[in-house]
Amino acid sequence: MNIDYIAIGNELLNGKISDLNGLFLAKNVGKNRLKLRKIHIVPDQESEIFMAINEAFENSDVIVLSGGLGPTLDDITKPTLAKYFSKKLVEKTEHLELIRKIYQEKNRDYDTNHYHYHRVPEDFALLFNNVGYAPGLYYQNKSKQIFSLPGIPAEFQTMFSKEVLPLIKTSNSKFSKNITFKTWKIPESKIFKQVDPDLWSNLNSIGEVASLPHTYGVDIGVTIEGETENDLQIKEKKIMDILNSSKVSDSIYYIGNESLEEIIIQKAIEKNITFGFTESCTGGLLASRITDISGCSSVFWGSITAYDNSVKQNVLGVKEKTLIEHGAVSKETAFEMAYGARKQLGVDIVVSTTGIAGPGGGSKEKPVGTIGIGISSSEDTTSELYQFKGNRLSLKKRFSDYALFLLLEKINSLPAGH
Amino acid sequence: MNIDYIAIGNELLNGKISDLNGLFLAKNVGKNRLKLRKIHIVPDQESEIFMAINEAFENSDVIVLSGGLGPTLDDITKPTLAKYFSKKLVEKTEHLELIRKIYQEKNRDYDTNHYHYHRVPEDFALLFNNVGYAPGLYYQNKSKQIFSLPGIPAEFQTMFSKEVLPLIKTSNSKFSKNITFKTWKIPESKIFKQVDPDLWSNLNSIGEVASLPHTYGVDIGVTIEGETENDLQIKEKKIMDILNSSKVSDSIYYIGNESLEEIIIQKAIEKNITFGFTESCTGGLLASRITDISGCSSVFWGSITAYDNSVKQNVLGVKEKTLIEHGAVSKETAFEMAYGARKQLGVDIVVSTTGIAGPGGGSKEKPVGTIGIGISSSEDTTSELYQFKGNRLSLKKRFSDYALFLLLEKINSLPAGH
Repeated sequence: MNIDYIAIGNELLNGKISDLNGLFLAKNVGKNRLKLRKIHIVPDQESEIFMAINEAFENSDVIVLSGGLGPTLDDITKPTLAKYFSKKLVEKTEHLELIRKIYQEKNRDYDTNHYHYHRVPEDFALLFNNVGYAPGLYYQNKSKQIFSLPGIPAEFQTMFSKEVLPLIKTSNSKFSKNITFKTWKIPESKIFKQVDPDLWSNLNSIGEVASLPHTYGVDIGVTIEGETENDLQIKEKKIMDILNSSKVSDSIYYIGNESLEEIIIQKAIEKNITFGFTESCTGGLLASRITDISGCSSVFWGSITAYDNSVKQNVLGVKEKTLIEHGAVSKETAFEMAYGARKQLGVDIVVSTTGIAGPGGGSKEKPVGTIGIGISSSEDTTSELYQFKGNRLSLKKRFSDYALFLLLEKINSLPAGH
Repeated sequence: MNIDYIAIGNELLNGKISDLNGLFLAKNVGKNRLKLRKIHIVPDQESEIFMAINEAFENSDVIVLSGGLGPTLDDITKPTLAKYFSKKLVEKTEHLELIRKIYQEKNRDYDTNHYHYHRVPEDFALLFNNVGYAPGLYYQNKSKQIFSLPGIPAEFQTMFSKEVLPLIKTSNSKFSKNITFKTWKIPESKIFKQVDPDLWSNLNSIGEVASLPHTYGVDIGVTIEGETENDLQIKEKKIMDILNSSKVSDSIYYIGNESLEEIIIQKAIEKNITFGFTESCTGGLLASRITDISGCSSVFWGSITAYDNSVKQNVLGVKEKTLIEHGAVSKETAFEMAYGARKQLGVDIVVSTTGIAGPGGGSKEKPVGTIGIGISSSEDTTSELYQFKGNRLSLKKRFSDYALFLLLEKINSLPAGH
């Protein structure tokens, strides 16, 4: 079954905020045997919303809209849906019970004079919102299901999981599975042109292949389908046989759909290894990416963001001499940061970053994109300079990708029960 | 002039990665008097790409595509564009010069047997890529301009700024300006229903009004247009008059399009105040949000992410007694974290966070969404418990929104030249 997602809001197209709900749907609908066919991001404008609903109606079974349900006058989703489906906007007393429940949960009264949440297109049902105030809308038309939810991510995501998913009628006739193997240290073009030129077509004869390059390697995914669970198992075995006989197998560091952050936490828990960071140019992003993952607290203990040199000296013990002779962006400073932070945090491994994210601060010798990364463990402390390209935000991302990759390598290389 | 943006890639719809280029365009095209009409996110599938181009062609002057230009077989953008415009895919020797230049910049040779970057739809021009390897494509058809760029954000964003923008012919017949005033401490519904029920219609008589609620307040934007610069100035003055005579003016903390992070850095620089953080539940996100802003280094010195209690004790000096008696998530712990981190970091203000982002760790007394926030300055140290709703990622965002809001309040309240 296909889903079309339509995000509505001028603020999504003028750069004020980015849509986070599309990514949430993309991550979550697959588990429920649904396929996100297309994401539309459109302004608060009737004609644009009509065009998107038209296309969604022709190509998908389920349409999920977000945004435009709030109390202000630019929130036009309700009248637009009413007009699209030729329904009147009506005030229904049977809706008041659900709306009063939403307000009571937040210890507030619903004032029918001030608010219009009970005014909805005729024949539409309301969906409960236990995070915010605006209820969602649900309507079924010619076997198509239409859901309209508030755009605020906390509200959208909770309501999609709790209210929408149980209402979607999935067809269970087919089984499908995605098998992703993650490779590192070889660029995408080399894998399919030099390491194993037959790999793509071999895999593609079993399922649909997709390739996703990263700063640290390439994820290769194969989606297989079958009429029975047994069909899937046979196809999965064929894929494993292809991999095992391919030269690419030496470069595979993980098989599964987990993110780099999740793999790091999983391996660290398995080996009972604690870790932390000290960050200059990545500025907290490494720690934030790790703490996005629930369950990280047993192995991730902390991080020291040392943006100013005084913090590098006073908290981490980086020597003034090192900063003067080699500069803050150097493998020498990266070394002392990692070493000092490991003593402070009391963890098994610390990875340090000190680099130039730009746009200013670069020189001919050390251009924007230069980074020193250090790794300290009870075994040893090492550090190296690397170069990346990009603007400030993409460099922060690439720097942190590469530092996490080096952390995973280090965790893999250490003995268990550290 | 309208732009349609079409992001192509299965990985954008199955949750592997999120599209970052749409937000980049949304933030940047406005400055160049272009309007982003719609963002389409579609899979690597010819029929879906055709449908999106059709709609874009009918409604916009410029079409920007991203993704699907790489060396693997699921990269179908080139053959799809060729088919759409009924062009042959041809190998042109005149393209080799530009491609060899791309490779030479990275000290590599271009092998015409292994790579197919010089194979492009007839009549399409190539665009230089100084970050990665795949060149972009450019084609003009019936006064419409089509650009196809690599999807990797560092490549897309650099190429859009350096190669695409100079090629877009903007019409300069009209002037437009967005005026945004940022309010805090009053919910969106109250502003327009109770504080000033005429505000929306008054503003809307001058320009297009949009309202964007945040964790800490509401941004209200008005976009005005005019045939001359003088028209704009007259309209801007009218808007300021409406604001000055409105009760809402007491709640305005900033007029302008800058983000909360940018406002904090600007005010801290003006007042010569340094600051830092110590983070438990926000896990580095506060520091990362501030270091996203170029120029932060003069006032932001660092942050200590103290996820494990041992780090709270050993690095920040939080007392074991406090952790046992009140728990890690308490205003007492938030107080000691902020105080201890200020001594460690040597800054004027430290904001601390210690809360429960979930999904685990909540209790009846302190449910998921509870956070202690402390603020320490040379004047005093205070702390308070707050409650928010949401899932792990949206709570991290809300927690950090609110902590930044409290930081800005503190910076505003301190005397200058601190």
